[in-house]
Amino acid sequence: METIEELTGRVRAFAAERDWQPFHTPKNLAMALAGEVGELLAELQWLTPEESARVMADPEHGARVRAEIADVTIYLVRLADVLGVDLLAAAADKLADSAVRYPVERARGSAAKAPRDQPPVT
Amino acid sequence: METIEELTGRVRAFAAERDWQPFHTPKNLAMALAGEVGELLAELQWLTPEESARVMADPEHGARVRAEIADVTIYLVRLADVLGVDLLAAAADKLADSAVRYPVERARGSAAKAPRDQPPVT
Amino acid sequence: METIEELTGRVRAFAAERDWQPFHTPKNLAMALAGEVGELLAELQWLTPEESARVMADPEHGARVRAEIADVTIYLVRLADVLGVDLLAAAADKLADSAVRYPVERARGSAAKAPRDQPPVT
Amino acid sequence: METIEELTGRVRAFAAERDWQPFHTPKNLAMALAGEVGELLAELQWLTPEESARVMADPEHGARVRAEIADVTIYLVRLADVLGVDLLAAAADKLADSAVRYPVERARGSAAKAPRDQPPVT
Repeated sequence: METIEELTGRVRAFAAERDWQPFHTPKNLAMALAGEVGELLAELQWLTPEESARVMADPEHGARVRAEIADVTIYLVRLADVLGVDLLAAAADKLADSAVRYPVERARGSAAKAPRDQPPVT
Repeated sequence: METIEELTGRVRAFAAERDWQPFHTPKNLAMALAGEVGELLAELQWLTPEESARVMADPEHGARVRAEIADVTIYLVRLADVLGVDLLAAAADKLADSAVRYPVERARGSAAKAPRDQPPVT
Repeated sequence: METIEELTGRVRAFAAERDWQPFHTPKNLAMALAGEVGELLAELQWLTPEESARVMADPEHGARVRAEIADVTIYLVRLADVLGVDLLAAAADKLADSAVRYPVERARGSAAKAPRDQPPVT
Repeated sequence: METIEELTGRVRAFAAERDWQPFHTPKNLAMALAGEVGELLAELQWLTPEESARVMADPEHGARVRAEIADVTIYLVRLADVLGVDLLAAAADKLADSAVRYPVERARGSAAKAPRDQPPVT
């Protein structure tokens, strides 16, 4: 569909139309984001990792997971907008940092031995 | 910078180069996402809502907040990729649902009285 | 009412009677705990800190908060039981560590200036 | 060691000695609790459920998990104290409710088929 900038604009308008800006402080939005992530966890908590990999094949459960991910995205986009953070630029910067901190060779070597000490991606 | 599709591709390559795909089940990634959201909360927990609204004005604190938001974004993008969910489409669908559930007139009326019962945005 | 050991025993029996032990791995229980904490956050997210301090005065909202705290407690007790961790002993040990890391004099001095760098209690 | 009431008193004194009470609103403490739960999740996120069941057998990793559980306990106890909630009574009440909502026979029957719809314990 659209771009992340368009989504950001739509969420901003959604909040403005309802006079919700006073509630949308970074602190409150971070809590709301965490609440939505909690709902996402609840959808996956009793599944094995393997079952979780097939969750979208179940139409009903898949729809719930997709809706929770949507809620997380909406609050994340809103929080970034309120803070003036460019989500994609921030993520790109962090990924570049992580590439330095987790060089390919060392990361591959450590994967088998110490999954915990190898925090994938970031 | 780029689009969310480009970021998704970069995060995917990052994981593949390090042989981290086996760890990147939806269940594990949802936990990692929640862990990063926890770090974001920790940056804002002792601030008043008003202080949180000015957090980016402090270069050091602002940089930490930006980095945590970046981590959240990276895991969210990775989770959506692994599940085959289009983040922007899912968010747009959810926003359309929320527009029906929270009609502008009713939402504005309820804002002052019952902030809790008026879950902004979603 | 009772002691934490009695609660632990009751939660254990509750799970056993329903054959839920296979689901109660530490990983799954930590996710469930996080999910319940997310519900607790949702109850407080749009309140100001001051409003949150009065939340128990509203019978309906207070009952919801109490119920979410109960859920968090139940999963925490269950997780500790499954891991063989003595919650009270672990907390006492950590508090002793924190007393060393945050000496009274320095902590008091820093409170006004740097609330973020003064992580209360732990 | 001690009772939960004694731990509550110790955490209260710890905060008071450092003049941290102004920061300890329910809203802030719920965020701190969520932040600590996020750290706990981070310790378990790349483990399989089976590995998570053996995590305490690794002295170093086990110590980290125990410390995170301690932090969660401390903030939970502090939050309950500030709200005037009796944690054990609240948990007992909730467990009684759950016993009604999840009768043993039905819960056992549904466990195999629908792990998601059978939210263990609560």
